Amino acid sequence: MPRVKPTLAGGFRDYGPEDMIQRQAMIATIQSVFERFGYDPLETPLVERRAVLTGNDPNFRMHLFDTRIAGSRIVDDPEQAMALRFDLTVPLARFVAAHPDLPRPFKRYQRGDVLRGEKPQAGRFREFMQFDVDIVGSDQAIADAEIIAVMVETLRELVGIRFSVRFNNRKLLNGLPEYAGYDSSLQADVLRIIDKQPKVGRAAVLRELAKPPRAQSGTPDSEEGADQVEAAFGPGLSATAVEKVGAFLDLDGSTDQLLGQASDLFQGVRIAEEGLGELREIVIALRSMGVPEELWRFDLSIARGLAYYTGPVFEAFLEDLPEIGSVFGGGRYDDLVSRFMAGSFPATGVSVGIDRLFAALKQLGRITTKPTLTQALVTVMDRSAMADYLSMTGELRRAGVRTMVWLGMETGFKAQLAYATRQEIPVVVISGSNERHDGSVTIKDMARRRQTTVPRADLVRTVASILQTSDT
Amino acid sequence: MPRVKPTLAGGFRDYGPEDMIQRQAMIATIQSVFERFGYDPLETPLVERRAVLTGNDPNFRMHLFDTRIAGSRIVDDPEQAMALRFDLTVPLARFVAAHPDLPRPFKRYQRGDVLRGEKPQAGRFREFMQFDVDIVGSDQAIADAEIIAVMVETLRELVGIRFSVRFNNRKLLNGLPEYAGYDSSLQADVLRIIDKQPKVGRAAVLRELAKPPRAQSGTPDSEEGADQVEAAFGPGLSATAVEKVGAFLDLDGSTDQLLGQASDLFQGVRIAEEGLGELREIVIALRSMGVPEELWRFDLSIARGLAYYTGPVFEAFLEDLPEIGSVFGGGRYDDLVSRFMAGSFPATGVSVGIDRLFAALKQLGRITTKPTLTQALVTVMDRSAMADYLSMTGELRRAGVRTMVWLGMETGFKAQLAYATRQEIPVVVISGSNERHDGSVTIKDMARRRQTTVPRADLVRTVASILQTSDT
Repeated sequence: MPRVKPTLAGGFRDYGPEDMIQRQAMIATIQSVFERFGYDPLETPLVERRAVLTGNDPNFRMHLFDTRIAGSRIVDDPEQAMALRFDLTVPLARFVAAHPDLPRPFKRYQRGDVLRGEKPQAGRFREFMQFDVDIVGSDQAIADAEIIAVMVETLRELVGIRFSVRFNNRKLLNGLPEYAGYDSSLQADVLRIIDKQPKVGRAAVLRELAKPPRAQSGTPDSEEGADQVEAAFGPGLSATAVEKVGAFLDLDGSTDQLLGQASDLFQGVRIAEEGLGELREIVIALRSMGVPEELWRFDLSIARGLAYYTGPVFEAFLEDLPEIGSVFGGGRYDDLVSRFMAGSFPATGVSVGIDRLFAALKQLGRITTKPTLTQALVTVMDRSAMADYLSMTGELRRAGVRTMVWLGMETGFKAQLAYATRQEIPVVVISGSNERHDGSVTIKDMARRRQTTVPRADLVRTVASILQTSDT
Repeated sequence: MPRVKPTLAGGFRDYGPEDMIQRQAMIATIQSVFERFGYDPLETPLVERRAVLTGNDPNFRMHLFDTRIAGSRIVDDPEQAMALRFDLTVPLARFVAAHPDLPRPFKRYQRGDVLRGEKPQAGRFREFMQFDVDIVGSDQAIADAEIIAVMVETLRELVGIRFSVRFNNRKLLNGLPEYAGYDSSLQADVLRIIDKQPKVGRAAVLRELAKPPRAQSGTPDSEEGADQVEAAFGPGLSATAVEKVGAFLDLDGSTDQLLGQASDLFQGVRIAEEGLGELREIVIALRSMGVPEELWRFDLSIARGLAYYTGPVFEAFLEDLPEIGSVFGGGRYDDLVSRFMAGSFPATGVSVGIDRLFAALKQLGRITTKPTLTQALVTVMDRSAMADYLSMTGELRRAGVRTMVWLGMETGFKAQLAYATRQEIPVVVISGSNERHDGSVTIKDMARRRQTTVPRADLVRTVASILQTSDT
């Protein structure tokens, strides 16, 4: 048969041992924080019914990976069509709806790969890992505060202090039409324009808000690429409305200052006042829990793209790598479960982008990769003494030392030592004819570049003591 | 929008917290054994190019899940078509071929879900988790022995002693035509018939081997369901050949006895003698490594279905649940990497079926599930004292206690206690007006059904001491 090219599908990647060893350590840290906060593990399948993922929403825009059993007719019946999950939140909502007997609140974490068929870019892949915590069945702002506390604690353990967790409340944005006096049908347009502020500046945003709409052709502007330049048409806000939106954009200061300013600004706007009340509760809760003040703040620019958020929204940024965007994102989504069933299932949660965070920690030098977890290599000097090498290997493993016996096809000692050096294996065990004659064994401490010959019976003790005093 | 049914796609399943907590513990045990034997982690994507998975083999029979980005034209170009992995071995071979600079030997473990579009049955799902160890770049029988040792050690830690690891060598089967004197073109048929022995018995197998083939219609028997009944047609082996296959089937005894019998039987059959030499090396290596004799044995009935095995093959069975089949399976596959590149890449390895093993351990009572990892619930008696509850929660978490503060929407104390009881949370922390007045806190030890009121400052110490003396 002709050879097959050993290439990956476009937009996918491997993680070799060097990365995986540290990635697993990072994941273990995150998991232990999540568990300390009282979250339990859940696992849902990679494949879901398409209707579950899209909610049969005609405006669903995510690029899904469809899937079907090879050779089966393509199933267009939306009840049967299958696709790969694009996040872990929708499957959670499906799980909650399918298990009405779950304890409430239901606090779970889930880690898993999700797939999106977007155009692959440098550092962006079509399959990536998310690690989520969510609380289903609590409408309280202290639940949102707990999510923020989890974010802070996770990043404290992984990054130290050079990060900030920022939050806002969608209800403030929802109060904008009433506050500024424009029709709520213009809201999507207004928010899209406001979002451009970091790129185009305040003046351009206000100019665009005032621009009259395109003659009623019925075709809205294409959104492709439109989010970075000032458009020719706008929602046609009145001068007063534009001025009021400008005042909103001008709010600035510490968390407490912002809360005060926003309270004045939104006075009498019920939905926004409700949102501010929740934010105040969150702030009090964070202080009560002892979450360090300098690691979180209220930030009116946080909005979170996903349509399902209904209240507080959260993001986390690394101060030394602001350009990579948020490494954690989430919010409250009180209506998602009702896609599947009647009743009230308020929920809030957050998701870590494992791949992005891992790449960031590597870039920041917070992670030093190493080629192997193996601590000792038992070399093979003489194949006729294999029984002896294998028994040493067994002894070391039973003592908990991560040990390899040389299994390579190159038999020379040089190749074995080169392997240990390349793989940074800290201890090499050598037993040649001299050692066997003496009943001894030679042990090389690779990091300190020294070796010692000890009685065979002292093998395990000697290796263990080298490992204890090195830090591998 | 109309509601969507919260149902899973057919053949898929969720793992709720009760199962997941113990499943994760089981996986952690396996991982620590694999690491002790010198294996390092690797991760490859769920999605691969279809050609990589099938090798463009026209006889490829696995039911793959094809996948494509929704809305894209169905890609029939085999260079671009994508599918979901059905095992972790083929992606390993692809990875090795793509990275010619890998250290040799390359010892890796990989854990991940694989997907097969087979008809779902009770206890069998279309997505299931495998956990593999493999050694690439060693042609030595001690590498195969190490794989067997890994299997034994893993099952020792998980199951104790009621299991057996059994191995054989495909080279003995490959020697059958020469030994028995039949044409090797009949081999596939002969092996298929021999495989029926446990179900139909020795006599029926020999009868079928002797049956003449169907008139040359060119259409082979359908294999569906054909493996359990005696067929009307057969390979038409001569009486001598049938007798010799019968003698092969009669081999029986301990590992050493079988090795002796098989050596006599296969005398002069080169490929089989080579296989027996490897098995002898494996046995010596297992004894040298100190792998307990009663936990492994040479078993001529082990064959492993997958086409890519070329030498020793391994399976593991639980003695108390023989009916579930093997929980570990693998073997040597020296030619798989050459699907992708020239050169010699001998390899050997084994895969644990995580879901099957987990179900078995539950059935055997080796695993007792519990609803949550959470160790303490801080109840909310009075929402005006929330700051106090949150600060207790923060203190407990900082001390490493897995803690929840009550976030539920039911506010009564009864509901909170019922939650703790149902979730088997071992410690409940209570602070009502009395306690707050006294500067004390009440701590319920749920398992021992007793409670104590201590100074507020002793909260962490008291909770920790209850947890230390219970075993949660």
